[in-house]
Amino acid sequence: MKKLLLMAATAALMYPLCAAAQHDVAHTPPAGTFPNEHNIHGAEYPRVDAEGHTYWRFYAPDAQKVEISFRGPMTKQADGWWTYVSPEPETVGFHYYQMIIDGVSVADPNGIPFFGMGKWVSGIEIPDREGDYFREKDVPHGYIRESWYYSEIRSEWRRCFVYTPAEYETSAGKRYPVLYLQHGMAEDETAWWRQGRTNFIMDNLIAEGVAAPMIVVMDSGNIEVAFNQRRDVSRAEYGADFTPILLTEIIPHIEANFRTLTDRDNRAMAGLSWGGFQTFNTTLPNLDKFSYIGSFSGAASINPAELSTVYNGAFADVKRFNRDVHTLFLGIGSEENPGRVRSLADGLKTAGLTNVVYYESPGTAHEFLTWRRCLREFVPLLFRK
Amino acid sequence: MKKLLLMAATAALMYPLCAAAQHDVAHTPPAGTFPNEHNIHGAEYPRVDAEGHTYWRFYAPDAQKVEISFRGPMTKQADGWWTYVSPEPETVGFHYYQMIIDGVSVADPNGIPFFGMGKWVSGIEIPDREGDYFREKDVPHGYIRESWYYSEIRSEWRRCFVYTPAEYETSAGKRYPVLYLQHGMAEDETAWWRQGRTNFIMDNLIAEGVAAPMIVVMDSGNIEVAFNQRRDVSRAEYGADFTPILLTEIIPHIEANFRTLTDRDNRAMAGLSWGGFQTFNTTLPNLDKFSYIGSFSGAASINPAELSTVYNGAFADVKRFNRDVHTLFLGIGSEENPGRVRSLADGLKTAGLTNVVYYESPGTAHEFLTWRRCLREFVPLLFRK
Repeated sequence: MKKLLLMAATAALMYPLCAAAQHDVAHTPPAGTFPNEHNIHGAEYPRVDAEGHTYWRFYAPDAQKVEISFRGPMTKQADGWWTYVSPEPETVGFHYYQMIIDGVSVADPNGIPFFGMGKWVSGIEIPDREGDYFREKDVPHGYIRESWYYSEIRSEWRRCFVYTPAEYETSAGKRYPVLYLQHGMAEDETAWWRQGRTNFIMDNLIAEGVAAPMIVVMDSGNIEVAFNQRRDVSRAEYGADFTPILLTEIIPHIEANFRTLTDRDNRAMAGLSWGGFQTFNTTLPNLDKFSYIGSFSGAASINPAELSTVYNGAFADVKRFNRDVHTLFLGIGSEENPGRVRSLADGLKTAGLTNVVYYESPGTAHEFLTWRRCLREFVPLLFRK
Repeated sequence: MKKLLLMAATAALMYPLCAAAQHDVAHTPPAGTFPNEHNIHGAEYPRVDAEGHTYWRFYAPDAQKVEISFRGPMTKQADGWWTYVSPEPETVGFHYYQMIIDGVSVADPNGIPFFGMGKWVSGIEIPDREGDYFREKDVPHGYIRESWYYSEIRSEWRRCFVYTPAEYETSAGKRYPVLYLQHGMAEDETAWWRQGRTNFIMDNLIAEGVAAPMIVVMDSGNIEVAFNQRRDVSRAEYGADFTPILLTEIIPHIEANFRTLTDRDNRAMAGLSWGGFQTFNTTLPNLDKFSYIGSFSGAASINPAELSTVYNGAFADVKRFNRDVHTLFLGIGSEENPGRVRSLADGLKTAGLTNVVYYESPGTAHEFLTWRRCLREFVPLLFRK
């Protein structure tokens, strides 16, 4: 295919043309606005102001309609640029979005992609004044590592991302406790690293001395099954094979390849949203293996009236639960209808569970700022026994 | 922004609708075709057949025109799906592409994104029969790690990706040689890992015993400067600050944080395309620091008639060059006009340079299959002194 060959061979020369499509050197952005931190290098839009309004410009002279998901239609200007300004400030935090061009939803070509909503989409961040804890600082940095293993259960090679603390490199004889940390519906093993900034949160907490040095393992909860063509998959099936994969494949893989502490007192699991559901499903029937449990914006489907029977009565044996579960952390954002999770926490405390911690993130919704904060609150509670 | 909040809070519930847009359960793909390996989980298109034809289906009922970059316009069907079949087999290897929807170039929502062409685009792979060497196998796996450091030169936090071989984890006292490996124009530090599959190539070569266990460092060559709004940047400026960053920031960072051998005999550098140009610019004036040099589809701008004068005469002192440069590797694909690079290699050999290796990748163009093969050929030559 000669044409393709020639085009490909000269792609490197052509790229300024390709890349320039969404750039407009003649345009001056509004004063007091700054580029979204998840734009690609040099992309000026979308932008945000100090109050949280968002500003959008998108070049599509031949499109009939351009929309921004969760926001609305843009307005076409005479020069081919489409514009939109959010009428009110947006909630602080990290929000997924897509551009919708004549009905087709795509990632913003100006953006760095994140896996959410079942595919690679874009993210806009309304900065949080307390956001420093999840940013890179001049402290010792651990590593995010990509680790591959073969799953017999799924007959495929899989990868997880593993955070090792900075001191892991030089503490040759030392072993570490492990937190298994799961993403939500329609996300994957990249989410806690990329959207969640787990490595910086851990680096900063460890450097402050408020968290124990630990390993954090982030894998796929297999929730992508809903996105293949088997449209008849029920919600009960989403990620149903994750618990056996974690227990019989991921944990053995991690313990064989990293210097880990392998007793229950040194193993924690947490997850956000659907990952919180998976965390309960995995840990509560296996309290011989886990002693710290975290659910971030999850577990809301448990009926407080049924606490004595759910999970085969895991909550009913109060004495055992208080002895075995050193922390049961329930976190949620104040702007995502926290009532049910708060009631669950209250119900568990009323039932006599002494190690339940409830955290409500002020002003945040069902998105990653809530979960970064949950991680920040949860991690200092771990591995203190 | 109440509406946004509610939408975001229910995004997890809505996702099957969002994700389904490019799925068509009623459609049966042509026999003998298989999904592109860089599609997201469950996405059926684009597809490839054994001969290398590509098959495309894209749902855009409201669009007026849908094109595939480097290929051409798709044909709109009555049901809102657009279709395209490549008229001839495409060249083996990894090809970047974008979908162009009513004139707007975007990554394919069916695809896994790669940073190339100055932004996040899609990739289609025409499988190579000899492709086994860059795939995951049941051998000991090293890690790709994300490593952060602060650049005083650019006043910013930067990251590189670092491959450490499997044995690094258990050989506490051992130090390793280092290959610094650079991407091409309009790519970034993710390219050798994601497009290049460096970790699997290294794992497999090391497991076969044909390559020495080594560390591989992949950083950004700063070629993104061309994509910001400073449209007056000349080609000479692209990535011009990379050499000092490598020499005074990256190498010290790596040597302070990994168990490295730090003498010139244990330090190599290679790059593809523009990264090959950067490799020559960095190594040839600094032969006290590097002893192995690789250029993959690069260096073609050197005029063989000027070999005695270019790079301040680095090639002219034949005795010194033969003593200091253990390998000068020049690789290129047979389908990207290899003549100039072949002539350069011939000229260098004629001039008396005994350690020049020329490799021509059969049937491949200016894309990552050429460079994966170059890496496979180059790495076994390293650190044999």
